[in-house]
Amino acid sequence: MEIAKVLHMIGGVGETSYDNDSSTPRKLTSMTGPIAKEAITALYSSISPSPSTLGIADLWRSAGANALFSVSELIKAVENMRHNNNEPLASQIFLNDLPGIDFNPVFRALPKFQKEKGRCFFAGVPGSFHDRLFPNKFLHFIHSSYILRFLSQVPEGIECNKGNISMASNSPPRVIDACHRQFQNDFLAFLKNRAQELVPGGRMVITFMGRRGKDPWNPEWELLAAALNEMVSEGLIEEEKVDMFNILHYKPCPSDVEAEVLKEGSFSIDRLEVSGPDWIAIDKEFGQRSNREDEEVGVYGTMRCMRAVAEPMLISHFGEGIMEDLFHRYRLVIIQQIAKEKTELINVTVSPTRRPA
Amino acid sequence: MEIAKVLHMIGGVGETSYDNDSSTPRKLTSMTGPIAKEAITALYSSISPSPSTLGIADLWRSAGANALFSVSELIKAVENMRHNNNEPLASQIFLNDLPGIDFNPVFRALPKFQKEKGRCFFAGVPGSFHDRLFPNKFLHFIHSSYILRFLSQVPEGIECNKGNISMASNSPPRVIDACHRQFQNDFLAFLKNRAQELVPGGRMVITFMGRRGKDPWNPEWELLAAALNEMVSEGLIEEEKVDMFNILHYKPCPSDVEAEVLKEGSFSIDRLEVSGPDWIAIDKEFGQRSNREDEEVGVYGTMRCMRAVAEPMLISHFGEGIMEDLFHRYRLVIIQQIAKEKTELINVTVSPTRRPA
Repeated sequence: MEIAKVLHMIGGVGETSYDNDSSTPRKLTSMTGPIAKEAITALYSSISPSPSTLGIADLWRSAGANALFSVSELIKAVENMRHNNNEPLASQIFLNDLPGIDFNPVFRALPKFQKEKGRCFFAGVPGSFHDRLFPNKFLHFIHSSYILRFLSQVPEGIECNKGNISMASNSPPRVIDACHRQFQNDFLAFLKNRAQELVPGGRMVITFMGRRGKDPWNPEWELLAAALNEMVSEGLIEEEKVDMFNILHYKPCPSDVEAEVLKEGSFSIDRLEVSGPDWIAIDKEFGQRSNREDEEVGVYGTMRCMRAVAEPMLISHFGEGIMEDLFHRYRLVIIQQIAKEKTELINVTVSPTRRPA
Repeated sequence: MEIAKVLHMIGGVGETSYDNDSSTPRKLTSMTGPIAKEAITALYSSISPSPSTLGIADLWRSAGANALFSVSELIKAVENMRHNNNEPLASQIFLNDLPGIDFNPVFRALPKFQKEKGRCFFAGVPGSFHDRLFPNKFLHFIHSSYILRFLSQVPEGIECNKGNISMASNSPPRVIDACHRQFQNDFLAFLKNRAQELVPGGRMVITFMGRRGKDPWNPEWELLAAALNEMVSEGLIEEEKVDMFNILHYKPCPSDVEAEVLKEGSFSIDRLEVSGPDWIAIDKEFGQRSNREDEEVGVYGTMRCMRAVAEPMLISHFGEGIMEDLFHRYRLVIIQQIAKEKTELINVTVSPTRRPA
């Protein structure tokens, strides 16, 4: 399968996004909740005259099953300010997702949600965050979780990533550089678009799946590659087929993120933070939600996420026949990994403020 | 069937709207196109400083098959102003419909549409126009066609409308008064909500299916009642069942519309117009679109509209069994009516401007 096709399928450059279901731990984004609340409160105090409505956009994956969970935290922050300031204040929430995504479930859930949440208005905005989505100086706050996860196009020079399916610890430097350059281009374009859309003083909170430092250790994909390579060594998959399979998932480190924000120039950075729930913590979260606490701790959540994200791509490239065998092996390498060391899912969160034009 | 249930089904007070298909002559609203263009141009000139983006809402039926046809005229008006004034100017279009309506087709059509139309941004707004849909002073222009067609609730005093299924020429005055009072309440509430949502100087263009004067002649429904009564006289339907079937479709005359706008007080009226394409003209419009010019002229369009609007309600109340017979008879009474006199579909269009607060 061509890389472009894989990319299309996973929503990097295409019209479908893969994880609009409850398999992705959307709740993890609630760790950015306090930063988002702080940012909203700070922007309201800093904009003069105080706006009577705060325009808030949640970009990408806003039409998924848990979309309203994420924005309810933001609405709560606005409601708190309304009570504290004793002034009429409303929030207008723009839920963005790709035009191919089914917006109907979230729209149908809105009347009940609105009744509970006080004065808030909603709109759905179909479009890609790689393009402009809103008019100039329209929004006060932009929230975005796990966006820019996949590169928007195939970077040149990643053909020599033998034995890997993503940027990995043992990838040649030129593969890592090529992915980094494409991330820079994508994030810079993203910042330029959002800088136009925000009012001066407006803020963003953006969370990436990232890494703590420069080490490109990419556990979930490297372990999947290990399972695939095991099947190659047993003659169950052709080696060439694995070499052709590339997941363009770039995980920035804090300095990657900081460098692009400063380079773009329209924003100051209020906060730049790294948090890292380990796989066991993620699993407990899933366990609670699905009463699966008897599963091997640390395996269930990772498996569930990765099947949701990776399985459609794997089926498309390798065929459905090997899936049970592959995920059985993947499960075993995850168990080995967890026994060996604490494995984190790193979140890099940045909160930039739009400077006056 | 209880009237409340009928109302729910037809979208008067419920969550479904019946005519999100191509059966309704959406293109008829293009007759209001020149008025809408004039209103948009006038508002842009009158608002100081000139806005860089015009916020435009199309209320109700915006998620239907022809939704983008209607707004493309409005976008064209904005684009003309942009060229004439040589200034950056964008339009932001809010497509409103009930939360139960399928927004996906119109969202999926947007990327191609946006590419052709220049600088315009889109959002879908799920909600009922009986409620607030937007924050205070948010919109510059509101367009709405055939809204408020059905009364929001069953008015008291319409139980004595024997032999009719709607407000009709021979309805007792108290039935007509009861429907009128409910229309007044609904339209007044609509105006109050929209007055909050518009900026000072903002404008609306609202088109009703109406009547020229006080005469409550309601041809499409009266002819359907005639077909039903014919079946009663032949013993095919119980008389009581027809008496219990009420379509709460109020058609205002220009003075009804004017009176409520003036009573509400937030708007001045720029234009108040009546237009009346006859059924033959409507039919020709449908004929062109469906290559059906060989049908009896004047019948096809009316039949198509009425089947789309009335058939689900009729099936729910009378059962599916009588439908072919009923619509066969209905077709014959339409042919007789057209042979007897020119029969119009009256549009009442009003263009109010928001006064400064």
